[in-house]
Amino acid sequence: MNKNFLLNSDLATRLYDGVSRLPIVDYHNHLSLAEISQNKRFTNVYDLWIKPDPYKHRAMRMCGISERYITGEADEFEKFKAWCTVFPNLVGNPLYIWSLVELENVFGISDIPSENNAEQIYQQANAFLEDNNITVEYLMDMFRVELACPCAGITDDISMFYKTEKFSPSMRGDDMLNISTDFIAKLEDVTGMQIESLKDFETAVKSRLDKFQIAGLRFADHALDNGFLYFEDDGKNGDRFLAHIEGNCDAEETARLASYILTFLGKEYAKRNIVLQLHIGAQRYTSSKLRKEVGPAGGFAGIGNSVDVRSLVTFLDVLDQGDFGLPKTILFTLNPSDNALFSVLSGSFAKEGVSGLITQGPAWWWCDHEYGIYEVLENSMAYGLLSNFIGMTTDSRSFLSFTRHDYFRRILCNFIADKFEKNKLCCNYEDLEKLVYRLCYENAIGGKKDDVSR
Amino acid sequence: MNKNFLLNSDLATRLYDGVSRLPIVDYHNHLSLAEISQNKRFTNVYDLWIKPDPYKHRAMRMCGISERYITGEADEFEKFKAWCTVFPNLVGNPLYIWSLVELENVFGISDIPSENNAEQIYQQANAFLEDNNITVEYLMDMFRVELACPCAGITDDISMFYKTEKFSPSMRGDDMLNISTDFIAKLEDVTGMQIESLKDFETAVKSRLDKFQIAGLRFADHALDNGFLYFEDDGKNGDRFLAHIEGNCDAEETARLASYILTFLGKEYAKRNIVLQLHIGAQRYTSSKLRKEVGPAGGFAGIGNSVDVRSLVTFLDVLDQGDFGLPKTILFTLNPSDNALFSVLSGSFAKEGVSGLITQGPAWWWCDHEYGIYEVLENSMAYGLLSNFIGMTTDSRSFLSFTRHDYFRRILCNFIADKFEKNKLCCNYEDLEKLVYRLCYENAIGGKKDDVSR
Amino acid sequence: MNKNFLLNSDLATRLYDGVSRLPIVDYHNHLSLAEISQNKRFTNVYDLWIKPDPYKHRAMRMCGISERYITGEADEFEKFKAWCTVFPNLVGNPLYIWSLVELENVFGISDIPSENNAEQIYQQANAFLEDNNITVEYLMDMFRVELACPCAGITDDISMFYKTEKFSPSMRGDDMLNISTDFIAKLEDVTGMQIESLKDFETAVKSRLDKFQIAGLRFADHALDNGFLYFEDDGKNGDRFLAHIEGNCDAEETARLASYILTFLGKEYAKRNIVLQLHIGAQRYTSSKLRKEVGPAGGFAGIGNSVDVRSLVTFLDVLDQGDFGLPKTILFTLNPSDNALFSVLSGSFAKEGVSGLITQGPAWWWCDHEYGIYEVLENSMAYGLLSNFIGMTTDSRSFLSFTRHDYFRRILCNFIADKFEKNKLCCNYEDLEKLVYRLCYENAIGGKKDDVSR
Repeated sequence: MNKNFLLNSDLATRLYDGVSRLPIVDYHNHLSLAEISQNKRFTNVYDLWIKPDPYKHRAMRMCGISERYITGEADEFEKFKAWCTVFPNLVGNPLYIWSLVELENVFGISDIPSENNAEQIYQQANAFLEDNNITVEYLMDMFRVELACPCAGITDDISMFYKTEKFSPSMRGDDMLNISTDFIAKLEDVTGMQIESLKDFETAVKSRLDKFQIAGLRFADHALDNGFLYFEDDGKNGDRFLAHIEGNCDAEETARLASYILTFLGKEYAKRNIVLQLHIGAQRYTSSKLRKEVGPAGGFAGIGNSVDVRSLVTFLDVLDQGDFGLPKTILFTLNPSDNALFSVLSGSFAKEGVSGLITQGPAWWWCDHEYGIYEVLENSMAYGLLSNFIGMTTDSRSFLSFTRHDYFRRILCNFIADKFEKNKLCCNYEDLEKLVYRLCYENAIGGKKDDVSR
Repeated sequence: MNKNFLLNSDLATRLYDGVSRLPIVDYHNHLSLAEISQNKRFTNVYDLWIKPDPYKHRAMRMCGISERYITGEADEFEKFKAWCTVFPNLVGNPLYIWSLVELENVFGISDIPSENNAEQIYQQANAFLEDNNITVEYLMDMFRVELACPCAGITDDISMFYKTEKFSPSMRGDDMLNISTDFIAKLEDVTGMQIESLKDFETAVKSRLDKFQIAGLRFADHALDNGFLYFEDDGKNGDRFLAHIEGNCDAEETARLASYILTFLGKEYAKRNIVLQLHIGAQRYTSSKLRKEVGPAGGFAGIGNSVDVRSLVTFLDVLDQGDFGLPKTILFTLNPSDNALFSVLSGSFAKEGVSGLITQGPAWWWCDHEYGIYEVLENSMAYGLLSNFIGMTTDSRSFLSFTRHDYFRRILCNFIADKFEKNKLCCNYEDLEKLVYRLCYENAIGGKKDDVSR
Repeated sequence: MNKNFLLNSDLATRLYDGVSRLPIVDYHNHLSLAEISQNKRFTNVYDLWIKPDPYKHRAMRMCGISERYITGEADEFEKFKAWCTVFPNLVGNPLYIWSLVELENVFGISDIPSENNAEQIYQQANAFLEDNNITVEYLMDMFRVELACPCAGITDDISMFYKTEKFSPSMRGDDMLNISTDFIAKLEDVTGMQIESLKDFETAVKSRLDKFQIAGLRFADHALDNGFLYFEDDGKNGDRFLAHIEGNCDAEETARLASYILTFLGKEYAKRNIVLQLHIGAQRYTSSKLRKEVGPAGGFAGIGNSVDVRSLVTFLDVLDQGDFGLPKTILFTLNPSDNALFSVLSGSFAKEGVSGLITQGPAWWWCDHEYGIYEVLENSMAYGLLSNFIGMTTDSRSFLSFTRHDYFRRILCNFIADKFEKNKLCCNYEDLEKLVYRLCYENAIGGKKDDVSR
């Protein structure tokens, strides 16, 4: 790789040099808690590079590769080779650059994968893994990760987080919004409480949140998928809850109860100073065949329609009127046509002493590429305040995806430098440095720090 | 400020030099009729620069400033200082440039405000106001405003417009679409008519429109907020009107009556050759707390979902089929994802002899920044005819916002020059000059003029 | 015209030089079957250049030209002159460049049309037509068209396609989704079958598809207009069909039956290896007056709201679960705010051995301009795989519109070159050449060919 990839001017390079070695704060991802707690050692390049990355699986499907060579029964080298074979067709997709950087930075291999060199790369990368002790910890250090927040559900075992400051849980709240008998049983099990009413449920959840906070909880996460509607409390959610744990519910009843629980949780987050991340707009149901074959998170989700603004705003307003007001809220959208809408909401609610009470999140999931990042930066800057932007998180399942922070930093610096050089900012150079520092590190870590190594 | 801010090439500068001193036509704004008619003299920089500008209030809220220092009980200097304190965080937002230009052009101060220099700027600016007679008239002359059209409701006192050619009313129609007993009483009062039926209402409105026309009326304005639906006349609007003035109505009934009245007005505009401005897509209800504290227009509105196309098109088509056809119509959208849709509508209706019967309006409200203006220009040019574009209006409450015409002219000239230099226009240089002249002045003033001073 | 129009760098020019003379594959258009089969000779420039082009008619309406001079009773020169008169107002609209190129490449005239030179151009162009034998075949050769696919309805006479390899039908399916007694009569007539049930209808359609395949059918086309909803089969479509051929139906019943028939057809396309084109998002009902005066396809359609994602995805999923899976599907959108959504769907379904099972189509209709093409390329590249992109088709009614392939190629090469030079692709130069070759020719012709003349 050209060391200035994605950078187009001396100013961009200069800004980038100032942030390229900052620690990484990755405040939401899907890394495996099991692999982290056992400090897994990686011994096969397929296992580290391709298996945990649904983005790559998706690209292979788009090139007509049989599922056998993606998630099926083919052996590791066959799958690796299938990936290398499609690679040249990926020019322009972010996977192309991400993969080249992953290969170069982790394995020291600077070839462009293809059918022809698949075997050679496979052997070279595996030899590297054999010769070196490539573990989770090694990778965390290599990428200079200061804090990573893998998802954990409210009933998950979070004991591993007590022992480390490098990881804290990102509390994934989705299973609380779709109450099932099974889930309640698990929650009873992990809390030792009996849950026979909505009140009991709330008590149990609060006790878990206490535990999560001891484990370092700073971020919670809810998905508001395509079709999300918010219903204000009609006083019937106690009954609704009972109906649900007996398995009696239809879609609207579930949506009404979900609105109630989401509101309950939002208020808890505000009280506890937990940042609420809303992941808005996925259409997770697409191919039934793929869902059956590779599970619900296999890399084939689509983008939903624009969010129902009145639902979203009413939800935020109900929280805002609670005793503790709105929690700090980050709005992620999978539908980029909602970018302006979300950036503007950053000016629609306020809380004394809180800068960036609502902010637009970074370019999320399928939007995480130079084009999508530019759009988010443009919108955050023009419709909101870019200085409040929290910066990058990977949302990834792969330990190699931390490279994407470097990708983001390059794009950010190039973006800012270009604006400055085109007479569009009218500020001083020092302000640029402060701005990129905030967006690459300070805003995510939650405040100023004195001694950041670069 | 660098005198070439926002301009990136010699060609851009050359085009800009040709239009930078053209008179301003600001065909829709919210300037205070009281302040205009008394030719208010400004004696405090806070009062002139910050108090009337909800954009600035919003930015302060986004930085966590207490409402006390925004619209509350703090004194003028405290509020001024709070604004200066947040200012460095605004890099990239249009407020940053607008404010610098306002400060430099009006007060001759070229510092970048911050907590440190707040007091010095405050004193310097106030001294300037003391030493000079800075009145509404002074500002109008300074900005070379040829015509400004502040909003006036149908029942408002418009006598001040009779005495001046520099101001004509922009008739704000919103209170006619949400009939209340109070409003009817006011309308009876101002017209001296008794209103006991829809017919009476129409007669009263027409008599007011006659008066507005004497006062120079050329532009009317209606807000079609998030959720707007259009209902064709079902013959029951006479009864509906009676129910409304008795206070009996629900949301759908109100929407149906509003559709009827909007149609009645649209036909009047067509007959009277009044330009209809539709301000589409605001979500004005966001934070209940802010609405209570600072009123409905305090700078916290959001962007709504995409307009219901069938409703909008049916409304336009019903007018088009009336005796006088469609009035000239300008479509403003707050949701930029509707830009293409609105530009394309400019080709969906036609009237002999009328160029630009429907056009997309300039980048509106939260969209009024370099990014938003570029998007509107790109869409108007590619999906419509840029030569029909009416150009900038501020829609502002502040007398200093006329600076935004200069902002628009720079962006426009830079946009056009860039296209030309990248071989994308294939026209002659003279055509560029004509185009920017039309968009900076001629189209808004409504035709050619011989002796425009530059 | 500057021979490098739309090209901004040596690299762009170099890439363009490599594809500029490739044959054209125009896989969907509206050329007249009658004019093709009679190899019409053109003798009047109005008749060739303006009459068949609703884009030009629309632009004239936007400039206030009376319909008399567009589609009305004025004579050919008057209409030609009206067009030339508005021409200078079109700067920036794609028509400006397209028209200049059409004039220069076909007639050898390099003037910019205006009121002043209208007569001279008219005479010069007509003299050219008189002196040369300008026929359909001449134009096809001049533009190096290898294959053009004009629309043909299922009941149309397609005998002309048997005799030629230069044309194959693009099967327009819309009349099959809105069953009328008339249509059924035509289908009975052309198949010689009696249609008394949905089963009969399907048999008749299949027999026509057999014929279309003999005529070279590779592409079918359905319009999913604004408001499209998909309904899964409820088992009542047999009855629904009978009600329809008796003329008893309401809008929802029609939509349900249409969903059924669309599904039936989609499965046939999959079985027969026919590519399904979905033209999504038009709002065809706008001005009733224009619809009455100039017919439904007169150039005044609007853009509809964003597609209902769940409807679209369910439709695709139902096909995917059929015996032959999804047919290869191209998603065209008229609403550019759906670009990302459609590009992402390219990764939501998969079929072994098929690269690009679903792809976003080229910038369609009102989106067919440099701005719209860039947006489609950006989205296809970032959210999908650009290498699977099928490339340009005109969708036009005019034989001169083949110039738009050159327009597309320039924009594509400029787009790719710019990305490469800005360090955004990180691939080898050779990969760029392969990519543009695929997008200008190979993907549309459906595979590799050995001996393509350039």
